[in-house]
Amino acid sequence: MNAHLAPGSFTGTSPAWLDVPDDVNALVPRLWSQTARKDAGVLHIGGLAIPDLVASVNTPTYVLDEDDFRARARAFKEAFGDRHGYDVYYAGKAFLCTELARWVQQEGLCLDVCSNGELTVALRAGVEPERIGYHGNNKTLTELRRAIVEGVGRIIVDSFDEVDRVIAVAGETGLPARVMVRVTAGVEAHTHEYIATAHEDQKFGLSISSNDAFEAVRRLAAAPGVDLRGLHSHIGSQIFDSAGFEVAARRVLALHARVRDELGVELPELDLGGGFGIAYTTQDDPSSPSALAEDLTAIVEHECRALDLAVPHLSIEPGRAIVGPSMCTVYTVGTVKEVALDGGVSRTYVSVDGGMSDNIRTALYDADYSATLAGRASDAAPVLGRVVGKHCEAGDIVVKHEFLPGDIHPGDLLAVPGTGAYCRSMASNYNHALRPPVVAVKDGQPRVLVRRETEDDLLATDLG
Amino acid sequence: MNAHLAPGSFTGTSPAWLDVPDDVNALVPRLWSQTARKDAGVLHIGGLAIPDLVASVNTPTYVLDEDDFRARARAFKEAFGDRHGYDVYYAGKAFLCTELARWVQQEGLCLDVCSNGELTVALRAGVEPERIGYHGNNKTLTELRRAIVEGVGRIIVDSFDEVDRVIAVAGETGLPARVMVRVTAGVEAHTHEYIATAHEDQKFGLSISSNDAFEAVRRLAAAPGVDLRGLHSHIGSQIFDSAGFEVAARRVLALHARVRDELGVELPELDLGGGFGIAYTTQDDPSSPSALAEDLTAIVEHECRALDLAVPHLSIEPGRAIVGPSMCTVYTVGTVKEVALDGGVSRTYVSVDGGMSDNIRTALYDADYSATLAGRASDAAPVLGRVVGKHCEAGDIVVKHEFLPGDIHPGDLLAVPGTGAYCRSMASNYNHALRPPVVAVKDGQPRVLVRRETEDDLLATDLG
Repeated sequence: MNAHLAPGSFTGTSPAWLDVPDDVNALVPRLWSQTARKDAGVLHIGGLAIPDLVASVNTPTYVLDEDDFRARARAFKEAFGDRHGYDVYYAGKAFLCTELARWVQQEGLCLDVCSNGELTVALRAGVEPERIGYHGNNKTLTELRRAIVEGVGRIIVDSFDEVDRVIAVAGETGLPARVMVRVTAGVEAHTHEYIATAHEDQKFGLSISSNDAFEAVRRLAAAPGVDLRGLHSHIGSQIFDSAGFEVAARRVLALHARVRDELGVELPELDLGGGFGIAYTTQDDPSSPSALAEDLTAIVEHECRALDLAVPHLSIEPGRAIVGPSMCTVYTVGTVKEVALDGGVSRTYVSVDGGMSDNIRTALYDADYSATLAGRASDAAPVLGRVVGKHCEAGDIVVKHEFLPGDIHPGDLLAVPGTGAYCRSMASNYNHALRPPVVAVKDGQPRVLVRRETEDDLLATDLG
Repeated sequence: MNAHLAPGSFTGTSPAWLDVPDDVNALVPRLWSQTARKDAGVLHIGGLAIPDLVASVNTPTYVLDEDDFRARARAFKEAFGDRHGYDVYYAGKAFLCTELARWVQQEGLCLDVCSNGELTVALRAGVEPERIGYHGNNKTLTELRRAIVEGVGRIIVDSFDEVDRVIAVAGETGLPARVMVRVTAGVEAHTHEYIATAHEDQKFGLSISSNDAFEAVRRLAAAPGVDLRGLHSHIGSQIFDSAGFEVAARRVLALHARVRDELGVELPELDLGGGFGIAYTTQDDPSSPSALAEDLTAIVEHECRALDLAVPHLSIEPGRAIVGPSMCTVYTVGTVKEVALDGGVSRTYVSVDGGMSDNIRTALYDADYSATLAGRASDAAPVLGRVVGKHCEAGDIVVKHEFLPGDIHPGDLLAVPGTGAYCRSMASNYNHALRPPVVAVKDGQPRVLVRRETEDDLLATDLG
């Protein structure tokens, strides 16, 4: 069956980017939060041994490295804010809970929300309303009224329907509606590529090329009670390359200049969106916040010079790039199954006590993750593994490809890094699974920010 | 912009299977539950006008047609059970709540669960334990102990780890462990295709070709306290064609015969799994339960004759095929946006007040759905629409392609049929969305089976 392989000898069906590790116990530092380390094979985060944490909170659990989250937030604040004057909005959709919203504010960042529920969490955390941005492609009149009455700092307007609604609410309440216009520049970026077209076939924004964006700006600029702050452009996700930003900035700033020239309005701000990538596996090598800040600022300054524009007040919206690497998920192995594949090789299927209910990204986006043993060292040779969940679905995969120690067995703890973004926030109760807690760790102390669901929680809405 | 098209004149980017409808108000009957009808453009289900229902429960909401669910359950029971002696297990993973589990039992079906939580719901509903099947690829010792102590009718064993566990629990408790062995036959079926290989690269089951399946049967057959009922094979999902079942049955029954010949054990049962398809759009034309029953029975009888086997007691496990068409989701339109595409055509993006949080299938499986206005008739010409949700993600699409009346506007009610399976069961709180209720309708009366989540529910686990 050829399941146990010496390092370097593997000839099976792993993807080209996945090397047989020299040491299957070692952490790849850029995949992990900054306090993560192994001590005699035992994973420690925030000064806490994971088996000790598991003894008190059980598995599966998300583990949030508080120092790491704060450090990444600060790195964006320093690189973009302190050095170049940007506002940095943490994109709450990646992951949001009340205490984490406080950390965002404490570190000097602003906060993006995109729903009534996220706004509730932000206000519950005491985030100053003027430091909140409100996104979304379908904000109701009621939601917009609440945002404006609460004094939300800016509402990102996404359609003509919303143009009408913010004008109506501003008129009705007499309160200022501070807005930006979400525009589509025809650029869609992902990893190292971008696609530039005239038209974007997507639900967000108002198109620059179709003139809808200019028309929305024209109406808002003329509306009493509306404080039009500027344009907003978001071009993609998990981006490693600034080339897409360059094309988008050229198109967005051309509109910015046209607004000045034709409407006589100098828009004071510009938001460049988010989408900055993180390392999920060894194939990813993201830029640092300071390198990103230099790149984006140079792009904007260059275009503004060419258009004879004053550089507007800039903002960005990292979400995943802050919280993604700050969390990992810890599972307990339940079953180990060697499955024969064609060609005489095999794959070791390792089932854990969670799955697509706590991490839908692998199935939803064909995303790659990595994994490591968290509770012990192993001197067994690595085998090609696949980490799967316990849900009744063949596509319930957590980590598609990873080398794991050949002696992995039921009861082992397994940790998957990079699960801070879009995992707990998209978690479900599929198969009546109970969603795991989010446990912050810092200085050797755990603190449950989001508790584990109970069966009572789960059945609360089932009226029997 | 060419957005308003006369029927038959459309030349844009809709898929080949999607015809411009003669009447954009008309229901396509096979996509809908059996009591669905339109009266002057107003959708009625279970004798209740949808706008009246919405007035009391709001949107988004799942609407469950009780008569339809019971009729589909009965149709499987009659075609497979009454006529051919099968047990019919409703696959609870598709959708399960307490009251619906009662309906399953009342209609004479058995119930499949695949987790501790689903077992709790089944027992809470009063389903007789011996009529419950317990699935899953990673059942813990604790879960297996509970299932055996409760007297669950059969446990579908999925790995050697589970073989060891059921033998251990049977020994420890002195209670009979009634088990089946989930085997993989190297057949993977979907819609009108199947793939047959020697080896299956998936987490479920024990492989026939690698001999693991026989070895698991050998161990279980020899274990005291274990009541080995038979083999279990499940080959795919949303299947419209019995060719895959034929290949799988041949391989599974060959193992069944080998067990008789080499171990001297006549396994009394055989489970053919589920995966029977439903119509999501006009491109789907599924078989009736009675046609399926004739096909599958003929396949099994033919193979048994060839192998000189008595036909074992058979069972099947429809989930989607029962509950899928019984539910629809009703949304309110929030924004309507005409997006210019290349080539001078456009697409009308219709945003509703739900999305990937209540139906992840479109994004997860690239699934197709349909939609119709639920609150009024329209005499506007159809436009090519895309129904999208309100989540902060470009992939948040509910219906990729549908012709909708050109005058669709905010406030319109829109209904999406075929959302009974894997929608509420996989629903999330992404963007802090509140999950919709499941409202059963029958004889003009609504009844909330699963209530809408509240913000308090949502924040119950966020410790602040």
